Amino acid sequence: MADLSLVEIEKLISQHPDFPKPGILFRDVFPVLRDPHAFKSMMNHLLKHIRELYCQDGNKVDVVVGLDSRGFLFAPLLALELGAAFVPVRKKGKLPGETSSLSYTLEYGTAEFEIQNESIKAGQRVIVVDDLLATGGTMSAGCQLVQKTGGTVLEAMVIIELVDLKGADKVTSCAPVFSLFKY
Amino acid sequence: MADLSLVEIEKLISQHPDFPKPGILFRDVFPVLRDPHAFKSMMNHLLKHIRELYCQDGNKVDVVVGLDSRGFLFAPLLALELGAAFVPVRKKGKLPGETSSLSYTLEYGTAEFEIQNESIKAGQRVIVVDDLLATGGTMSAGCQLVQKTGGTVLEAMVIIELVDLKGADKVTSCAPVFSLFKY
Repeated sequence: MADLSLVEIEKLISQHPDFPKPGILFRDVFPVLRDPHAFKSMMNHLLKHIRELYCQDGNKVDVVVGLDSRGFLFAPLLALELGAAFVPVRKKGKLPGETSSLSYTLEYGTAEFEIQNESIKAGQRVIVVDDLLATGGTMSAGCQLVQKTGGTVLEAMVIIELVDLKGADKVTSCAPVFSLFKY
Repeated sequence: MADLSLVEIEKLISQHPDFPKPGILFRDVFPVLRDPHAFKSMMNHLLKHIRELYCQDGNKVDVVVGLDSRGFLFAPLLALELGAAFVPVRKKGKLPGETSSLSYTLEYGTAEFEIQNESIKAGQRVIVVDDLLATGGTMSAGCQLVQKTGGTVLEAMVIIELVDLKGADKVTSCAPVFSLFKY
């Protein structure tokens, strides 16, 4: 069965006004994940992009990082298809062993991301994955933390980018942003 | 390349005494996910089990549910391989649209799980996935919530089961438990 186009997949992304709070229009990707053909097609679009940009001329992707928790939905799939390692970036206190951490600013207060030190070797080629790019604080912190371990961030990859919030501007000092759907 | 055996995969699961607090021996599955061959092999063992038990004689799995957040690492992969829908169960307040919820007891206090009502149809055959079965409170709540939507829970599937904590006893009133590694 041929993959669905991005236009066809995008029709499945539902909109929810005033969620999780008034004034926010929430874009829900889960209807895509409920449709096996659409979900598979979406992952194939991401893989095609990665292979064309980063897996030519003997190059490869060594590590796919998923940001806790919705990056976990996509990053392990990409890692297995690429023959790469999957590595999690989690909220502070959830990963055992020796870790590195990085504080970052959220809308209200700060949070801290953590990664296992042994999970990425210096010079490894890394893609960092999350579901959504909004203000860019979370993704920027994830990419900086990977750089702190010595990894080279090839790309910050998301399914949905909320362009008006200019999150890409915050991330691009660290890595180029790729988003499948822009709003 | 032939799949690694369960014995070979298990060697990668690392042990961390006194994490996240004194007296707890933490079993870390992430080293498996860093090894693409081991990770792929582990998923193939899970798929073989599912196909043998639930995909014979024209039967199939309709939905694979992942519990937030580490069930998200495995459930989407299983869903895509099985041609099933992936559906998340999340902490209260994170899913838009009409939802059903269920409170459950944790070591300290209570928590509430939520699922999107439209995500499972009555009579659909469902596997519920998490990384770990400890006391069984989380998995039991996830399975009950799926039943509340009208889904039939075929199995509660985890990577690691801590047998001494008797979590399976709490879950089996709802569904049989399958674990890849028992400690």
